[in-house]
Amino acid sequence: MTQQTVEFFWDPASPYTYLASTQIEALTARAGARLEWKPFLLGKVFEATGNRMPAAVPAKGKHLFIDVQRWAQHYGVPVNMPKIFPLNSVLALRAAVAAATHGKAAEFAKAAMKAYWADGLDVSQPDAVATVAAVVGLDGAALLAQTQEQPVKDQLRANTDEAVKRGAFGAPTFFVGERLFWGNDRLVLLEEYLCGKLAA
Amino acid sequence: MTQQTVEFFWDPASPYTYLASTQIEALTARAGARLEWKPFLLGKVFEATGNRMPAAVPAKGKHLFIDVQRWAQHYGVPVNMPKIFPLNSVLALRAAVAAATHGKAAEFAKAAMKAYWADGLDVSQPDAVATVAAVVGLDGAALLAQTQEQPVKDQLRANTDEAVKRGAFGAPTFFVGERLFWGNDRLVLLEEYLCGKLAA
Repeated sequence: MTQQTVEFFWDPASPYTYLASTQIEALTARAGARLEWKPFLLGKVFEATGNRMPAAVPAKGKHLFIDVQRWAQHYGVPVNMPKIFPLNSVLALRAAVAAATHGKAAEFAKAAMKAYWADGLDVSQPDAVATVAAVVGLDGAALLAQTQEQPVKDQLRANTDEAVKRGAFGAPTFFVGERLFWGNDRLVLLEEYLCGKLAA
Repeated sequence: MTQQTVEFFWDPASPYTYLASTQIEALTARAGARLEWKPFLLGKVFEATGNRMPAAVPAKGKHLFIDVQRWAQHYGVPVNMPKIFPLNSVLALRAAVAAATHGKAAEFAKAAMKAYWADGLDVSQPDAVATVAAVVGLDGAALLAQTQEQPVKDQLRANTDEAVKRGAFGAPTFFVGERLFWGNDRLVLLEEYLCGKLAA
């Protein structure tokens, strides 16, 4: 059997994507699948699909962080509500594209999401992005310079357009081939699918 | 320790509420909790909170039934996409309020959701509601007559207003005291909370 690949479209602006990022490597390892981290800009996905962030509904927004804290307890991972929310994630995502060119796609993604959702770093800011770069062994100034290069900007836009074209409307979004799984709360179904326990 | 009560606000229009209805009795039994079935009108909850049904976002709507089918497989329960969707659930919900006065709150709720989401019955229609009534041993004509009584209508409205006031914005909504759990996909967290494994 060919090895399956899980494409993980992520944006650090999304708390449920952070939660999923703490679980997905163990999940794909259990299922014997490859994992590909693909940064994308959730705000543009919302624009393109007419979807909107949960906090756009006040009652949902009020419940959101309670729910996120429950998941964090369930997983046994840290979470702290960021002081700046929602997050402008463009710079962090461009830096993630740049980090991938140095073989640090997974490391940077996990570090960026943990920085924002657990460690109180405002990763919309260059200094915080440089800190994340250092955590994964990259030169912060060089990585920030790379975020201004057109191919880096274009790659982020291409990832976003690709996700929308393939049916994404939120985050986290996972693809196995053209099968879409949406949400941290669908990791159970994703794993069952990878293990042949779900038909589609 | 006082026995805990789970209040389950349900509307047959919601596929995730149907899915939850197939699991909640076993869950509360495992946790030693009481279960209270409370019909409410999801459309009015959306109106009151500014929330909207998932299918209001086309890409989400396209994904919805695939996702629902995966959950049905996961649980091992039947599901068939209704021919009429979305559902006008007012009559079925009033009948549920009436059925509760005959001690059939749980039975009618489960039968109404199964009728719509598995058996192809359009429970917006009186004949289908009468069929559901018969399934749970009630007289269909008498129950339909009861749906026209003001106290029945008022009770449904009161349940809906109560849910909104307590923070509900979608379905299924579960309360344990004033702790809200939203979604079939939060049953795991609800059970952990009931069993003392989550702080809040």
